[in-house]
Amino acid sequence: MFRRIGRDLRIGLVVALVAGGCAFGAGVARAQADPLPSWNAGPARERIVDFVKAVTTEGGKDFVAAPDRIAVFDNDGTLWSERPVYFQLAFALDRVKALAPRHPEWKTTQPFKAALEGDVKALAAAGERGLLQLVMATHAGTTTDEFAQAVRDWVRTARHPKIGRPYTELVFLPMRELLDYLRANGFRTYIVSGGGVEFLRVFAEEIYGVPPEQVIGSTVKTRYEVRAGTPVIVRLPEIDFIDDKAGKPVGIHKFIGRRPIAAFGNSDGDLQMLEWTTSAAGRRLGLIVHHDDAVREFAYDRGSPIGRLERGLDEAGARGWTVVSMRDDWRTVYAPAR
Amino acid sequence: MFRRIGRDLRIGLVVALVAGGCAFGAGVARAQADPLPSWNAGPARERIVDFVKAVTTEGGKDFVAAPDRIAVFDNDGTLWSERPVYFQLAFALDRVKALAPRHPEWKTTQPFKAALEGDVKALAAAGERGLLQLVMATHAGTTTDEFAQAVRDWVRTARHPKIGRPYTELVFLPMRELLDYLRANGFRTYIVSGGGVEFLRVFAEEIYGVPPEQVIGSTVKTRYEVRAGTPVIVRLPEIDFIDDKAGKPVGIHKFIGRRPIAAFGNSDGDLQMLEWTTSAAGRRLGLIVHHDDAVREFAYDRGSPIGRLERGLDEAGARGWTVVSMRDDWRTVYAPAR
Repeated sequence: MFRRIGRDLRIGLVVALVAGGCAFGAGVARAQADPLPSWNAGPARERIVDFVKAVTTEGGKDFVAAPDRIAVFDNDGTLWSERPVYFQLAFALDRVKALAPRHPEWKTTQPFKAALEGDVKALAAAGERGLLQLVMATHAGTTTDEFAQAVRDWVRTARHPKIGRPYTELVFLPMRELLDYLRANGFRTYIVSGGGVEFLRVFAEEIYGVPPEQVIGSTVKTRYEVRAGTPVIVRLPEIDFIDDKAGKPVGIHKFIGRRPIAAFGNSDGDLQMLEWTTSAAGRRLGLIVHHDDAVREFAYDRGSPIGRLERGLDEAGARGWTVVSMRDDWRTVYAPAR
Repeated sequence: MFRRIGRDLRIGLVVALVAGGCAFGAGVARAQADPLPSWNAGPARERIVDFVKAVTTEGGKDFVAAPDRIAVFDNDGTLWSERPVYFQLAFALDRVKALAPRHPEWKTTQPFKAALEGDVKALAAAGERGLLQLVMATHAGTTTDEFAQAVRDWVRTARHPKIGRPYTELVFLPMRELLDYLRANGFRTYIVSGGGVEFLRVFAEEIYGVPPEQVIGSTVKTRYEVRAGTPVIVRLPEIDFIDDKAGKPVGIHKFIGRRPIAAFGNSDGDLQMLEWTTSAAGRRLGLIVHHDDAVREFAYDRGSPIGRLERGLDEAGARGWTVVSMRDDWRTVYAPAR
């Protein structure tokens, strides 16, 4: 796998260098004008381009005014990898270890015990809600500023256990191109993640070009207080909102107040978001990233506990959603290492 | 009062006509260039203009990059009137009457009983939370689309009981100019209201130029469901979040994820929002609309149950907040009737 990834990266690097060096050559100028260079020609790419053309053509029957060009993206597994565990969970597990001396009770309480012992089986048994609890609870009592700093520190130092690169480099290049392409066509791009909003907002602008106010996610309750004359917002150990499954349309409605016209996901946790987006009148785009590339990334979704995709694959045809094969539709998976 | 308002409107109309008719005359062109024509010269206006100049002057010590130019506005009493009752409460009271035949239990349950009987004393006794409950509960069970339609219908037909104009015309013209002025200088303007977000979003774009995704407010819990094949979001009879007092910084952090640099309020319910905004490093603007104009609007805030302003007035000097006298600082209160 790593050899293949390495080759892929080298090819990407060569393409980038050539494109940069020959910026004024006619042939390459044409290639440069392609907004989706990491997408292979094929039905997925075609549907994206056709959709964008349709909703941006003034006077056309499918034209949508710019303020209503809202596109929503799941994060884990859609914009970046989510294996072997959600990256935010990797962050939380690292934090459990760092904070354990201050929390002796974690040694005997699940799912903290499992996290400290690296007990993957017990962690899996805690279920998605247990894992989310772990993610949410490891930073109770910190201020939001302290939490953001902890995320920044972790992002700078942590490395993916298998791929060996910083997590923030494991963004899918074709999806980053898609975000840019949509924005260049007057769309506003939102992230709608099951992950914690305060985790994502720290780096979403840098790695996706998505500003904090366009990141929607799960939240813990917080409290405003003045500590020794300084106002702070404190994170409480209580879940406020879970932005997953049927929570995604709820979060979209709460935070945006407009119905999106395009939705991008990769698991059945995104099903309701795609349904809500694509079932309204007018031209819509629903797209599912199908993890079928065991060589360059991971092949897992059908039947997997994390990122499970069953209904999405079974119903995509009937619902008019586009299934993107990572293996066939993407020329590149990750950008070259920086 | 109405005579004075009438005179004021006539003057406003004449000014508008003259300005429109002489668009190319040198003297009026200068007047037209004034972005805040409804503000009298004075310290309030001066501080606003100085602030905007300071944060938008590139290379200046107070320069703020455009994405961080976030300004937050309370709504009731800050952007439009709130007397004799919050306008959303007027809407809710009208809805209680309209829906009463379907809710026989309201005849014996407070605060619904008081609403049906027009019992102002009992309504006041229900407190702000009781009133908010009334506002929130009158539309439980409707879908969000049905609710928005009910608001649209009401806005079109309802009239202010004393002033006789549609509620949406009772926007403070100086504040509308201020919103436009800030946006023209690269700010993004947010509404941060104790009122319900789904009420405000229906008309905030039309009357304030603020799009739905920049309206933050109190929320009820909602549920996504598919009814006979059609996805809907249903409003539940349960408060999700109260965006008032210490809830305002919490709401700002949750929805925007950035700290504002300017905040505008009119009551002690806005105190924490002003505090959170103005206590951070860098140039900040905090401004309080002081209701001291019994002739053109209402004079009430200190000691009033609705829109109470005590600490704001007492502490403004020490905290560096600007108190705007509606009577002295505003040339006009409402725009002329359309």
